[in-house]
Amino acid sequence: MTYLLGIDGGGTACRAALADLNGNVIGIGRSGSANIMTDMNTARLNILDATEAAFKAAGIDAAASGTVFAVLGLAGANVGGNGAKLEALLPFQKSLVYSDGLIALQGALGDHDGTVVILGTGSAYVTRLGNDIRFAGGWGFKVSDLGGGARLGRDALEETLLAYDRFHRRSLMTDAIMERFGGNPHRIVQFAHSATPSDFGTFAPLVFEYASKNDEVALALLDKTLAQIEEGLDAIMPDTGMRLSLLGGLGALYGARLSPHYRAILQAPSNDALTGAVQLAARNFASREVAHG
Amino acid sequence: MTYLLGIDGGGTACRAALADLNGNVIGIGRSGSANIMTDMNTARLNILDATEAAFKAAGIDAAASGTVFAVLGLAGANVGGNGAKLEALLPFQKSLVYSDGLIALQGALGDHDGTVVILGTGSAYVTRLGNDIRFAGGWGFKVSDLGGGARLGRDALEETLLAYDRFHRRSLMTDAIMERFGGNPHRIVQFAHSATPSDFGTFAPLVFEYASKNDEVALALLDKTLAQIEEGLDAIMPDTGMRLSLLGGLGALYGARLSPHYRAILQAPSNDALTGAVQLAARNFASREVAHG
Repeated sequence: MTYLLGIDGGGTACRAALADLNGNVIGIGRSGSANIMTDMNTARLNILDATEAAFKAAGIDAAASGTVFAVLGLAGANVGGNGAKLEALLPFQKSLVYSDGLIALQGALGDHDGTVVILGTGSAYVTRLGNDIRFAGGWGFKVSDLGGGARLGRDALEETLLAYDRFHRRSLMTDAIMERFGGNPHRIVQFAHSATPSDFGTFAPLVFEYASKNDEVALALLDKTLAQIEEGLDAIMPDTGMRLSLLGGLGALYGARLSPHYRAILQAPSNDALTGAVQLAARNFASREVAHG
Repeated sequence: MTYLLGIDGGGTACRAALADLNGNVIGIGRSGSANIMTDMNTARLNILDATEAAFKAAGIDAAASGTVFAVLGLAGANVGGNGAKLEALLPFQKSLVYSDGLIALQGALGDHDGTVVILGTGSAYVTRLGNDIRFAGGWGFKVSDLGGGARLGRDALEETLLAYDRFHRRSLMTDAIMERFGGNPHRIVQFAHSATPSDFGTFAPLVFEYASKNDEVALALLDKTLAQIEEGLDAIMPDTGMRLSLLGGLGALYGARLSPHYRAILQAPSNDALTGAVQLAARNFASREVAHG
């Protein structure tokens, strides 16, 4: 082994961090989508592109990439043998494919026990107690991901139509959303027809913005969503004094609104998921050296 | 004019009823989808096919179809001039395109004032008070259609995953659904990924079935959904003693569970939407004759 490699791959981008054998990062590279659920081959090519860019950033010949010890955190790694399939396709000396949630947890909490909730477009829970790692939620926009930006943004559009029909009360927020669609509810329907989860998610920040101005509809949506997030926490947090971090684009926004007993144990994440991948590479490499040495 | 023609066109099928000038039906025909929102030309062809089949069933030469007075009830008729566009494309002597909700209301209530809620795969409200017709809901699965089978079935899948994650309690219903997917939550995710609203709707009858056995999760889902339906009724029903009918595949199932004050005014629909279209044709034709005669 000559280097460690951490990979954080997701639906929109893939990042690679090259590090020395102690885990000190010496180069970072970036490329396109690495979603192994939807397209394994594109994911593989983008992982290699990001790796090459990381070598270049470190000023090292990428020919050495065949000697690295790599840890990859990828969405869908634990579905239907995808992780093992990809490991067999990669040219690195050793490749370990974990879920994206695990590298996020490692980055946020380091080696501590605790729980992270990733609140981006989707939502997912990861908790660690010693060697026991548990995943929950994160089954996708259609039937899960409560609290994620896509669900929250969709809810805001639904409330706008309910207000239009006078089934629910109007508010400055629903008026503002209706105005974005030219006051025409059919344009909301057209938007929703082809909207991706990310498209729906573009309305989530608006809910927080109006909630901060005490908009009643926005506050009611966040009350519902926070209750869902805390139901998850109640279920997944063992009642020891564990750490909790909320990650993702909406993590900090939700964090400020959590119930006091959760806010009391809330911590800013120590590092990002890419750093988590490098840390896991360093730890696995070290324990491997001990075992082999 | 020689005959009246009623058309009930929807996403899966189109039905045509040929009637004499008094509105007595003499032949019924059927064909495929007539969704003018997604495919105007296919809708037009299926309307003509169903009409030809209705003439054939009546034992009358379809060459006479150019002389009919037609009323068509079609989803999306009131969106972006679709109705007027189709009227110009049809070969009948006179064509009036209304929304599917209006012919459903006419069929269910005849000439009485009142409200119908169409609870099929989607959900929609139509209310009539004299000449004032009001539509609400029915903006589609993604951002509306609360109480419809697609939303209810989706909810049941979401509850099954929440039970799998131990965020919510399990029940016989969630166990039964999980078993349909071989106990594998990833198979629910895969199903949901490509499921149409109708596909989600296939799980709605299961919710009623388990609710009738006092399944706690099923009852909680129906409590939520009934509250949403009654919010709509509270908003749309003027507080006179109006009639109310619940239509669609889930109408009778929901009807039995409505609050007492709504159950008290609930009536079985007098006729179906196709009959409603024929009635509207007869009424429009008669008033036209008076005006022209």
